Amino acid sequence: MSEVKDITSRDVDFAKWYTDVVKKAGLVDYSSVKGSMIICPYGYAIWENMQKILDAKFKETNHENVQMPMFIPESLLNIEKEHVEGFAPEVAWVTYGGSEKLDERLCVRPTSEVLFCDYYKKIIKSYRDLPKLYNQWCTIVRWEKTTRPFVRSREILWQEGHTMHATESEALNETLQMLHIYEDFQRNYLAIPVIVGKKTEKEKFAGAIASYSLEAMMYDGVALQNGTSHYFGQGFAKSFGIQFLDKDNTLKTPYQTSWGVTTRMIGSLIMVHGDDRGLVLPPNIAPIKVIIIPIGTDEQIELETKKISDELKKSNISYVVDNSNKTPGYKFAQAEVKGYPVRIEIGKRDLENKEITIVRRDTLEKVKINSAEITTYLPSLFNDIQKNMYNKALARRDSMIYEAKNYEEFKEIATNKPGFIKANWCGDVACENKIKEEFNMKSRCLIDDEEINGNCVVCNNKATKRLYFGKQY
Amino acid sequence: MSEVKDITSRDVDFAKWYTDVVKKAGLVDYSSVKGSMIICPYGYAIWENMQKILDAKFKETNHENVQMPMFIPESLLNIEKEHVEGFAPEVAWVTYGGSEKLDERLCVRPTSEVLFCDYYKKIIKSYRDLPKLYNQWCTIVRWEKTTRPFVRSREILWQEGHTMHATESEALNETLQMLHIYEDFQRNYLAIPVIVGKKTEKEKFAGAIASYSLEAMMYDGVALQNGTSHYFGQGFAKSFGIQFLDKDNTLKTPYQTSWGVTTRMIGSLIMVHGDDRGLVLPPNIAPIKVIIIPIGTDEQIELETKKISDELKKSNISYVVDNSNKTPGYKFAQAEVKGYPVRIEIGKRDLENKEITIVRRDTLEKVKINSAEITTYLPSLFNDIQKNMYNKALARRDSMIYEAKNYEEFKEIATNKPGFIKANWCGDVACENKIKEEFNMKSRCLIDDEEINGNCVVCNNKATKRLYFGKQY
Repeated sequence: MSEVKDITSRDVDFAKWYTDVVKKAGLVDYSSVKGSMIICPYGYAIWENMQKILDAKFKETNHENVQMPMFIPESLLNIEKEHVEGFAPEVAWVTYGGSEKLDERLCVRPTSEVLFCDYYKKIIKSYRDLPKLYNQWCTIVRWEKTTRPFVRSREILWQEGHTMHATESEALNETLQMLHIYEDFQRNYLAIPVIVGKKTEKEKFAGAIASYSLEAMMYDGVALQNGTSHYFGQGFAKSFGIQFLDKDNTLKTPYQTSWGVTTRMIGSLIMVHGDDRGLVLPPNIAPIKVIIIPIGTDEQIELETKKISDELKKSNISYVVDNSNKTPGYKFAQAEVKGYPVRIEIGKRDLENKEITIVRRDTLEKVKINSAEITTYLPSLFNDIQKNMYNKALARRDSMIYEAKNYEEFKEIATNKPGFIKANWCGDVACENKIKEEFNMKSRCLIDDEEINGNCVVCNNKATKRLYFGKQY
Repeated sequence: MSEVKDITSRDVDFAKWYTDVVKKAGLVDYSSVKGSMIICPYGYAIWENMQKILDAKFKETNHENVQMPMFIPESLLNIEKEHVEGFAPEVAWVTYGGSEKLDERLCVRPTSEVLFCDYYKKIIKSYRDLPKLYNQWCTIVRWEKTTRPFVRSREILWQEGHTMHATESEALNETLQMLHIYEDFQRNYLAIPVIVGKKTEKEKFAGAIASYSLEAMMYDGVALQNGTSHYFGQGFAKSFGIQFLDKDNTLKTPYQTSWGVTTRMIGSLIMVHGDDRGLVLPPNIAPIKVIIIPIGTDEQIELETKKISDELKKSNISYVVDNSNKTPGYKFAQAEVKGYPVRIEIGKRDLENKEITIVRRDTLEKVKINSAEITTYLPSLFNDIQKNMYNKALARRDSMIYEAKNYEEFKEIATNKPGFIKANWCGDVACENKIKEEFNMKSRCLIDDEEINGNCVVCNNKATKRLYFGKQY
């Protein structure tokens, strides 16, 4: 059980707990390439599940996958002014091809707006060419100084959708449609109760008119932005000179969106659901739903293990069998580190009663069931676990959201209580900046479903908006 | 029909025909990033099918997907001497991160042997850690001077398997297992009759003990290497100091393989099967198997189109409907450019006889069938098309393989006849080099199933091997 003892308690040192879990669960490993990580088989299998589910949803909504170049010539990056200012400080520059110095340096894409625009300029000529609904799965690079597995790293696996529309309302609908696809996915598959809303002017994406984000609260009360969907209006399109001949025979500029989620969602999964024993994976995203642990090497136990395995296979339930020569205790602990939603123990004494022991990872509750019932029992158990994990995360999140009516209250909460703070705001960036400087809290997103009643939590002028504030890593 | 008229005849200018087809079928487009291409939705959908089929085969054979860093520090690339000499001249170098010059420059991976070895050194300690059977799907970069869509480009989408084994025989088996998985895939899905064999010392991969390749012959008789599987022995492992404690309690060095295929297979698909009307896709790899073309806008035709579409959907047969306002002739031509295996025409006169017209893309043969039979008719038609395409490609390939008994014969064939030449060889690289210099033909691979009887086609000394020679792009 040495493995488990090596996990730092999450209440003692959350950052250390996190790196212990990602490492011991076999999700990532460190490489000798500074700032880059290795995604190990178990971590990559989670990403493959995320890709499969999301990609199907993108295709259902008529999006098509493409692959754009990974390099952006400096002159191309420079076309949209706000955008280049946002990204140039954190890109990696290729300056040599073999032994030859390049005439123009190329950055490794930090995001691909300019590449898509450059292409759209070429292929969008008429209203018949619209909408264009492209997406790509790829790796992007941002030259971060400090890194943290899945959460902040120099290389990021993600998908980026880039769409062009004939009208503003179509583009706005697309922005919200994709935001809600993300939201449903994170709630229903990842069991993460994300808060969804519009970013402030200060926090929006470089070049966007409006950015929407999905904000998840980690166990320690810190916010993690789990995805974004942007409405660009005609900004990029104008900079790139993209125009189409509309039905009325006039030249118009199209409206644009982009949206993306990354492997950071794996970081959220860990930090929302994990506990001191390790990872806890929701059944709907777990690459392996069940671990079978035979206790002992008796022939009858072997037969039962084989029988149960065959049943699971037939019912299309993913599983592994731990046949190692370790002790049961060690195996249980390892299964808990890995976060398999359900553990089946097959022991001698149970067998005599035609029973097997089922342990759910989320609550660690044990039940004995008749082994013949296994494939009817499991699907409803998975449902229960999925729901319970969501509700537990929701309850914890809600218990860590506070309302601050004035600056004193804000200070009191920000200083003493981890979590999010809801507050009224006048709309002035100076007040947002003050919260950032004083408490290291950024605005997460606007609250759009609550009445605005009162004054700005910073300057005390009349409030025009309400905001979530939260710390980030 | 302007689109079709714009395709150059493949017998007039094959290179031009190829670029016309990749462009007009909507597979790729040129980007303003020199040397990089854009893979368009239809081209990317073919790659997705290839990935899906191969990935399932990799997983069936117990391989696991991972993701390694995309950058390689120069010092890491330098560890294996032959390897760095092979790749250093063609890598892209990152020298700046944001505005800061890097202490050590990083190349964008041209292949990931050194990254896997660096990682394996860390995680392989005992015989229990073996075998390690990792694969990754990613983009690699090679700084090519001249490019050709799918065939040679600066950015390449591929998969690379990297495995480590306790024994030589296990590693050799793995090398051949993966070679045969590729071979089966290319024969059965791509309908490409690949020639499979070992590379000569001169042509093997930088750092390998043995390289095996899959050699496809294009319509113009030129060879395209469609994939490789390498046996590394202990070379890299020794350079990296990878050792494991074996069952007998002694430290041993493991044996290694690597294997990969790329989007180049799409290039082969086009150049093996395409014709002057455009692409011809084998049903087993086509993203869309059927195009339905309603002729006219009559209500009855609309109903029948809907009925047929529903039937295909129910039978899980991928299809599109061309509802555009173009002429039937234009639609037929477009369908042919795209290479959909089967076209269904729904016309007024046919309807009166309860018939629909079926046109297969490979032979352009037309038949009329009772529309009620469609979903039983199609699967067997797909089978026929698949087989016919393979046999046609095989017959053409075989008709363009020649035997040269001596240098005069070799010269005669190499000068006048496109295709491959089989010849005896003494095993001396000087003779291989002479063929390369005189005729611009490289050895493709060794022939291992034919008796060696005679003298070297170049030096006339006793032959010890037989080779395929062929030109490449």
